[in-house]
Amino acid sequence: MSSVYRKIKGGITAPLGFLSSAVSAGVKNPDAERLDMALISSEMECVAAGTFTTNRVKAAPVKVSQTHLRDGNVRAILVNSGNANACTGVSGLQDARKCTRIVGKLLDLKQSQVAVCSTGVIGLPMPMVRIEPKLSDLVTGLKRKEGTAVAQAIMTSDTCHKEISVSLTIAGKKVKIGSCAKGAGMINPHMATMLCFVTTDAKLTKDALSAFVSQSVETSFNRITIDGDMSTNDSVIMLANGACGGGAIRRGTADAKKFQEALDYVMLEMAKSLVRDGERVTKFVTVNVKGAKSYNDAKKVAEAVANSSLVKCSWNGNDPNWGRIIHAVGYSKAMVKEELIDIHIGGLAACLGGLEANVSMDALRKKVAADAFIIEINLNLCEGEYTIYSSDLSPEYVDFNRSEYAYWKQARKDGLTKQ
Amino acid sequence: MSSVYRKIKGGITAPLGFLSSAVSAGVKNPDAERLDMALISSEMECVAAGTFTTNRVKAAPVKVSQTHLRDGNVRAILVNSGNANACTGVSGLQDARKCTRIVGKLLDLKQSQVAVCSTGVIGLPMPMVRIEPKLSDLVTGLKRKEGTAVAQAIMTSDTCHKEISVSLTIAGKKVKIGSCAKGAGMINPHMATMLCFVTTDAKLTKDALSAFVSQSVETSFNRITIDGDMSTNDSVIMLANGACGGGAIRRGTADAKKFQEALDYVMLEMAKSLVRDGERVTKFVTVNVKGAKSYNDAKKVAEAVANSSLVKCSWNGNDPNWGRIIHAVGYSKAMVKEELIDIHIGGLAACLGGLEANVSMDALRKKVAADAFIIEINLNLCEGEYTIYSSDLSPEYVDFNRSEYAYWKQARKDGLTKQ
Repeated sequence: MSSVYRKIKGGITAPLGFLSSAVSAGVKNPDAERLDMALISSEMECVAAGTFTTNRVKAAPVKVSQTHLRDGNVRAILVNSGNANACTGVSGLQDARKCTRIVGKLLDLKQSQVAVCSTGVIGLPMPMVRIEPKLSDLVTGLKRKEGTAVAQAIMTSDTCHKEISVSLTIAGKKVKIGSCAKGAGMINPHMATMLCFVTTDAKLTKDALSAFVSQSVETSFNRITIDGDMSTNDSVIMLANGACGGGAIRRGTADAKKFQEALDYVMLEMAKSLVRDGERVTKFVTVNVKGAKSYNDAKKVAEAVANSSLVKCSWNGNDPNWGRIIHAVGYSKAMVKEELIDIHIGGLAACLGGLEANVSMDALRKKVAADAFIIEINLNLCEGEYTIYSSDLSPEYVDFNRSEYAYWKQARKDGLTKQ
Repeated sequence: MSSVYRKIKGGITAPLGFLSSAVSAGVKNPDAERLDMALISSEMECVAAGTFTTNRVKAAPVKVSQTHLRDGNVRAILVNSGNANACTGVSGLQDARKCTRIVGKLLDLKQSQVAVCSTGVIGLPMPMVRIEPKLSDLVTGLKRKEGTAVAQAIMTSDTCHKEISVSLTIAGKKVKIGSCAKGAGMINPHMATMLCFVTTDAKLTKDALSAFVSQSVETSFNRITIDGDMSTNDSVIMLANGACGGGAIRRGTADAKKFQEALDYVMLEMAKSLVRDGERVTKFVTVNVKGAKSYNDAKKVAEAVANSSLVKCSWNGNDPNWGRIIHAVGYSKAMVKEELIDIHIGGLAACLGGLEANVSMDALRKKVAADAFIIEINLNLCEGEYTIYSSDLSPEYVDFNRSEYAYWKQARKDGLTKQ
């Protein structure tokens, strides 16, 4: 934690001028009573920016939100869990647009001022019959302190909700940043099946906000991997309404640097919390590569190690298997010299100059048995560095992901699909 | 099967003029009596060619064999399982070279005429104290019909040995090709923790043999994936001794085409057998991509689908989850248009034009429940095609790969490691 900002309570409604609400619509299961729809809204005009999945198969709400963020002045975000509205074709787009139209009307906003996000199973139509009647409940339920309910409503296979907020002082004004996010499978560098919403009462231009968001996403959500898969629905959307007062934070200033530092922290904490709560994950592993020929080479090595099934299996088994790590380093396509590679596990040398280090196996094993540890790989070639946050791969992960079939079958019975 | 060749018995000693032997040296475990060292040798001069792992961290025997294949007239192959002799530095290289020197002397060959291969755990020194005394036993034990013993001696986590042989007629002469191979983890396109040896009594120039081998490897071992990891030791080595008589098969001729077809078959059958016997694999899945903008795009899509943990988990669970398949198609970085993508599972349409097809879920599920099935992905853009042979990912795979620690600990006790 830095001296620039401090953690406060409140999540996305901690910043001034933001309202939220959440309801239970039974999107996935009509009989379940869990919160699964939410709305975030700014009381005043605001600027918005977002980053989205780079998957070429994009969910309908991603397409709609990208357009609205580009062309409109987004002031509200509608979100549901339980159905991804992905691979749903023209009717999926119509459903997403219809939701933004209805919410816009109820909030007295243009349709283009409402962004929309969905997360859940791919390939099933949205149960609009259950969603539509809840939209007015969401609008009438908007409150100033309901941030946690939104964090809960967006959960899918997450086991806990994730939110954070910080405050910092910029030009004598108290600025707040709040955020909530969800994981927990299909998590890979360059976005994942994750949603993250960020609010701030700082005053920012749209361009400045976009730049802040892009930079923070690059060092947070683009640095995490759970299972190497990349989802169709990943979205980070940030709203800045200027409610804290004062002038706009201009890029390139000391104030901008402070704001970026705080936003980096918020997004990185959210990103790390997704890894910690990854599907059936038991370990949080930081893979830190240094000494690479370039930034890109360091990235290749970090991604190869952090995504190797065999490496991740060994972490699950408390196995300090540096042989599997160096084999992943070798196939990463980065420039490496085997005889220069050092690997430290939890601060202990496991491999020095490409050879087994003179170290106690039991000491190494204790490092890997911890809930969280750092793998440091030094290629000893140049200055390239990169860090990724990863997890182990457990038999329970595979078991958990073996079958969604029962759900699909039920969905058919519910009349959600064509046949 | 084609009319060009027919399957025969005998493995690598089916072709004329090849000898082999196998012994138990206790490379991994001094107390175990399984075969773990083998020797293949041609009775006469021959030409040799090989392809090796593209991992930048290469095992010592890979480095030695590459040099010998380039500079020498390799006529014998020494191989052990139980220890990879990878990440073993200068002493590992010395060990590998020493073995080739001893075997060369015993066979009255130059050191550079002996190739050497190892497979097993990475990062441990070779137990030369147990290996060296067995080298003369291997040489004195050479016989004409011992091919199967070699196939057995190279097994690691394989559950069965793999061998094949075919005969074909070229220019009136009966030509034979024999092969044996081992898997079974770290299997990924571009070679794996696999070894494959191929013998033929055809007469070939070294250049012709290299070309034949490269082409067959490209359509066989470079097309299989089990766990997305790529080993430090992968090697395919082929020997051609011309013992069948007649002139050399020249490239670009009809005879060469016949020989290539037979060799393609031999290597593809070996490659497929590695997938079928992949670690804790329950399904053999052919991923066939067509309609891509280019060959490379088709390859990207096939590799993304065949390596997706989530897709492989769903196959394990008999789950015809085309949503996960299309999400992998989307992140493959190939050019795709979501609304044009068709996915057939076992011949049944699961997704047409990016949307769920009108198909019985139970019928689809039966297709995925089979031991082997084909996933056909048509991008409907152009003519690019690519096929990969893949498998499911099981909880048992992860469990199997969780820990080698017990082995390492034993290795320390055996004095195999420094401490």
